[in-house]
Amino acid sequence: MNNELQPIGVFDSGIGGLSALRHMMDVMPDRRFVYLGDTARVPYGNKSADTVTTYARQCASFLLSHNVCMIVVACNTASAVALDLLTHEVTVPVVGVIDPAAAQAAFVTKNGRIGVIGTRATIGSGAYEVAIVRHAAGRNVQITSQPCPLFVPLVEEGWLDHPATELIAREYLRPLQDAGVDTLVLGCTHYPLLKPLLARLMPGVTLVDSGECAAHTACSLMTSSSIQSDLGERLTVYLTDGAPQFRPMAEVFLGRTVATPSIVSLDTHTTLGT
Amino acid sequence: MNNELQPIGVFDSGIGGLSALRHMMDVMPDRRFVYLGDTARVPYGNKSADTVTTYARQCASFLLSHNVCMIVVACNTASAVALDLLTHEVTVPVVGVIDPAAAQAAFVTKNGRIGVIGTRATIGSGAYEVAIVRHAAGRNVQITSQPCPLFVPLVEEGWLDHPATELIAREYLRPLQDAGVDTLVLGCTHYPLLKPLLARLMPGVTLVDSGECAAHTACSLMTSSSIQSDLGERLTVYLTDGAPQFRPMAEVFLGRTVATPSIVSLDTHTTLGT
Repeated sequence: MNNELQPIGVFDSGIGGLSALRHMMDVMPDRRFVYLGDTARVPYGNKSADTVTTYARQCASFLLSHNVCMIVVACNTASAVALDLLTHEVTVPVVGVIDPAAAQAAFVTKNGRIGVIGTRATIGSGAYEVAIVRHAAGRNVQITSQPCPLFVPLVEEGWLDHPATELIAREYLRPLQDAGVDTLVLGCTHYPLLKPLLARLMPGVTLVDSGECAAHTACSLMTSSSIQSDLGERLTVYLTDGAPQFRPMAEVFLGRTVATPSIVSLDTHTTLGT
Repeated sequence: MNNELQPIGVFDSGIGGLSALRHMMDVMPDRRFVYLGDTARVPYGNKSADTVTTYARQCASFLLSHNVCMIVVACNTASAVALDLLTHEVTVPVVGVIDPAAAQAAFVTKNGRIGVIGTRATIGSGAYEVAIVRHAAGRNVQITSQPCPLFVPLVEEGWLDHPATELIAREYLRPLQDAGVDTLVLGCTHYPLLKPLLARLMPGVTLVDSGECAAHTACSLMTSSSIQSDLGERLTVYLTDGAPQFRPMAEVFLGRTVATPSIVSLDTHTTLGT
């Protein structure tokens, strides 16, 4: 097996992970990527850890069957609940979005007050708290977490600066403002599209983009391990459902045009470990 | 096989169909019900017709394995795209939510101007237009349809009368107000929870609850066919995912306490016709 010919595999519950892939394609311009969006079962953020773990294992299995040299879990929910298990089950390196963002947040905060926003499942897992405290390495940090379940559907509607989105954001962000955070982790790959609004509502606060942080971690791992993909077709996109509204939104997330995605079923794929 | 011992099977993408089941339990107090909510893959409304059809067939197959005497598709999206196929494939009567609501809307409208709100998939299917025109039986009707994709997540957040919900509802309803509709079909089983808000924003407009209409159709079919369920445990609920937020919301939809649902996998079930 020649690592130089292998693409990097990236998966997400849907198209949100394309916002992370965008950074990966920027920082690793000589790499090839295979992206899987589980659009037939999107979203993951309102589902249980057991179900998300099952789905994540199926996604990883699908990517491995495409001979990837690394798997990036570009979904905060799946990273929160399934990363440890995937890391043990998969023989290639696995990079999640939570640890890199937690490290960045612990690094950039000045007053030690860090806010985390994400889906109900991500926030409920407590994964960010654990990771931030670990990276703070004994420094005193105060973490305020807030589930923002309406942000994903609002972003998917394209209502990025709609008055309703602002009204909802003001309500979600109030506890973080009250806590005086100077750093806010966008713990969902949909949220970077809300950056202009969030920056306006949280002036002076550093926004940490989990997908961007993961892209840098994946890049450094590629370099240090000398894992290289070949330079053929740069991006292949697979989705598990082909609803027409995904295509235009995918291009907003990725910041590039997307070739027609292939629609695949994960049911026929052997789940890892079974 | 003794029909009198068989329950009525009801399925939905999630817990929204409980708002239809509520009416069924009211109008058929001597019936037993098996409810399946496909919470592991909720929602259906943003997915393609192919995917929703696959899921609907798996749900119907699961209910048939529980020996139901009738299947009520308490999901507008699944009714819109999969009802004809299910009706052909299944040997028990199949009742959807669209035809009963279309019949009611065509019956109650005075000015012939009917509004329909639903998910993107339901509205995109055009199923309500076809059914309403058929039930209008030559009378002139003007139908204005509006997808309202944010209503489901807002209802699931419990933001039934939140200022953001009102702001979003005003935007969604404007074309229906402009069209002068006197009848509004709530073409999604989540929407009945928004009735107080919708009634306030659409004064004088008759709201047609698709789940309530389907309950009456199912009831009349049971009587006319002399199909009867036994009088054991009244309701058994199965979900495909057990996320903790579903339970309290389920009781709001059903208007009754719900026994702990059993969590099941549909993957092991043979899909109809395969």
